[in-house]
Amino acid sequence: MPSTNLTFASRAEHRAWLATQSALPAGFRVGATKFDFTPREAPKPAKMTLTLIALDRPTPDFAAVFTRNAFPGAPIIVGRQRLGAPALGAIIVNNKISNVCAPGGVEASERVCAETARLLKLSATEVLPSSTGVIGWGLPVDAMLGALPQAVGALAGGSILPAAEGIVTTDLYPKIRRASLGGGSIVGIAKGAGMIEPNMATMLVYVLTDIAVPRATLRASLTRAVNASFNTISVDSDTSTSDTVALVSSGRVAGVDAAAFEQALTGVCRDLAEDVVRNGEGVRHVIRVRVQRAATLELARDLGKAIVNAPLFKCAVAGNDPNVGRLVQAIGKHVGAQAPGTDLSKLKLMLGGIEIFSGGVFRLNPDKEKALVAHLRRAELYATAAPKDGVFTPPIDYPSHERCVEINVDLNSGSAEATVLGGDLTHEYVSENADYRS
Amino acid sequence: MPSTNLTFASRAEHRAWLATQSALPAGFRVGATKFDFTPREAPKPAKMTLTLIALDRPTPDFAAVFTRNAFPGAPIIVGRQRLGAPALGAIIVNNKISNVCAPGGVEASERVCAETARLLKLSATEVLPSSTGVIGWGLPVDAMLGALPQAVGALAGGSILPAAEGIVTTDLYPKIRRASLGGGSIVGIAKGAGMIEPNMATMLVYVLTDIAVPRATLRASLTRAVNASFNTISVDSDTSTSDTVALVSSGRVAGVDAAAFEQALTGVCRDLAEDVVRNGEGVRHVIRVRVQRAATLELARDLGKAIVNAPLFKCAVAGNDPNVGRLVQAIGKHVGAQAPGTDLSKLKLMLGGIEIFSGGVFRLNPDKEKALVAHLRRAELYATAAPKDGVFTPPIDYPSHERCVEINVDLNSGSAEATVLGGDLTHEYVSENADYRS
Repeated sequence: MPSTNLTFASRAEHRAWLATQSALPAGFRVGATKFDFTPREAPKPAKMTLTLIALDRPTPDFAAVFTRNAFPGAPIIVGRQRLGAPALGAIIVNNKISNVCAPGGVEASERVCAETARLLKLSATEVLPSSTGVIGWGLPVDAMLGALPQAVGALAGGSILPAAEGIVTTDLYPKIRRASLGGGSIVGIAKGAGMIEPNMATMLVYVLTDIAVPRATLRASLTRAVNASFNTISVDSDTSTSDTVALVSSGRVAGVDAAAFEQALTGVCRDLAEDVVRNGEGVRHVIRVRVQRAATLELARDLGKAIVNAPLFKCAVAGNDPNVGRLVQAIGKHVGAQAPGTDLSKLKLMLGGIEIFSGGVFRLNPDKEKALVAHLRRAELYATAAPKDGVFTPPIDYPSHERCVEINVDLNSGSAEATVLGGDLTHEYVSENADYRS
Repeated sequence: MPSTNLTFASRAEHRAWLATQSALPAGFRVGATKFDFTPREAPKPAKMTLTLIALDRPTPDFAAVFTRNAFPGAPIIVGRQRLGAPALGAIIVNNKISNVCAPGGVEASERVCAETARLLKLSATEVLPSSTGVIGWGLPVDAMLGALPQAVGALAGGSILPAAEGIVTTDLYPKIRRASLGGGSIVGIAKGAGMIEPNMATMLVYVLTDIAVPRATLRASLTRAVNASFNTISVDSDTSTSDTVALVSSGRVAGVDAAAFEQALTGVCRDLAEDVVRNGEGVRHVIRVRVQRAATLELARDLGKAIVNAPLFKCAVAGNDPNVGRLVQAIGKHVGAQAPGTDLSKLKLMLGGIEIFSGGVFRLNPDKEKALVAHLRRAELYATAAPKDGVFTPPIDYPSHERCVEINVDLNSGSAEATVLGGDLTHEYVSENADYRS
């Protein structure tokens, strides 16, 4: 799945590489501003960043997919309406508060859109809102309106980095991926680290292109690209109420072949999806499960998800412990509860290229055990450190490599195949989430 | 759900209470023995306990339910056959290795049964085997046969405690619950701390009674009692390959009313199920979700499970953080993905008796926030301690109280109801499971 196999020895190296990915497509400017406010529900000082993505002129060619969570945030409700609008001129994003099921949430979101539109000389329906952060709190609309002129003033072409940095919450680093084709480019940014098992869309992702693609083609391509990327990952099995992937074309570069565009778009989405997992909260190992020769695509994907979401197996991976019994347990749980009747008699399991299960029994020995431990250690992103205060924090804020724990599930009973990415379950995850709001 | 509301200030207090629960029903003896061995797959010294439950004479009146995991352990395969046997005379249980998908697993299990039968003068089909522990490894049959005579020699009536202690793995304390009726008693013991989301049966549970109940009644009652108890709990959403609940009657006490028996049996099972959650790996808070006025029982139970299995909400509870947004996210994820079309418009949510959500929006304020924090703190079993070596261990090996984090989900759209129990997600859980085998 990864189109790259990069390693970074330091934050500076990673930042230098990000700079090579950051050139904005023609026709876009981005800006961000940070300000202080006090949430109504828990009166303690907090910081919010407003990020603005603006087109030089409104475009009819935009697409978006949203979460399937049954309690979507107010920006999702507004965003679904925007899909019917004739054009899009800007995207306004805030972090810290996700504006989900807060009293008056839709009105709050519309007020922010209206003021953004006024400052940019757009109509309110030409502004797409996004919010991410604590669920349940209300937006500090007055403070946001006060900060908006600074975001507008910061708008600049050239680099997408200020937007990639502006939209993050618990992310350790900004995520940017690009593809070039036909004289134009596709550049995507993503925010997302926890509450990640997207169902149809994910987190906040914005993909900008200057390649002219008609609205209908853009929307069909985005749906397929998202299914092949963000819908195959899970950090913690939780599906956000704010998941959004938006794709916007400024149309500045004459159209390329639709299939080539979709292929490049899918590549950008897959790389960003892997970035999101690799920077998942507390993730020390990325786990890649390839399920092959399944009877159906649904079975292949669900089985992959069942493995990357099994807490005990995730803990074993965190400990570089090849406890493959927990892997078989996860498969058996899924099949027993969700897919009874599945033929498991020809199942073959590989971990790190080593056969560990076939013909209904484990194929283990002490030499394999050592090789499996070595595979897990090689895929570890950083060594955990026992902290003095009990709060575990990743010691680096860049991805040291792009290696994965590689699991191969061969069902030998069909022709469907899926690859699913997930993360391990670590002290760093618990530290991040047992104390997130304080 | 809890039939008791006990508090224990020390291990000694808890042990004294256990002693009051431990009297064996007439017609049973138990014995256990511990021995050293070296697993083939990972040659390091290990310890195993063999636990024997023996009837004074074989009984036709026994029942058992087993895991729905599609990779059941060899003892489950053997146990399903035993259900067709005319009588049961003994149960032989080992911990440390679960004998799941190990080459020759069924033969190994049968050899242990045959030797147990020989020593007790039973036929091999009168012995029910159980194994729990690492998945994938093979049983050390020769070492087990060598230790069996000690287990037989240790057989004694009086107290079930040696069996309750013998079957544990990562449990912090033995679990025993009893009911008395009609001059007889029902006494159950349970082992289970991790890999716990039973689906039809759970972990290892043995319920012994001297009350005469015919086999058919016993089996029907057990199925219903398990559905109302072990099938409504989840520590970590993982379903064990070894889950077993066995119920055996020695028939020494003349039969009581079948309905009264089933009610008492259900009470014992529910109390044991709650014990298993309370002693779940790393559990610091037991979470009890009562889903009311749902359209179907399935929706009520699945929604409860979705809440107690949502990692981010579990982490928030661990941190005494009333991050109720994560609770709504979990409900919305389940309904959006698994039960679309469910009417959520009349949903009312309570936490600790405090209304937090109704009419589609959150009902929060700083005073409620303080009260919610107080509720979470009161339900905490122990304060976590930041350890010097980074390995978090529960500081007590007894349950300090039986309070729960109380969540009420009122869907106001039907008449079905379910109560589900789960635990939080803590550093203690990760410490336990990232390093379990080493």
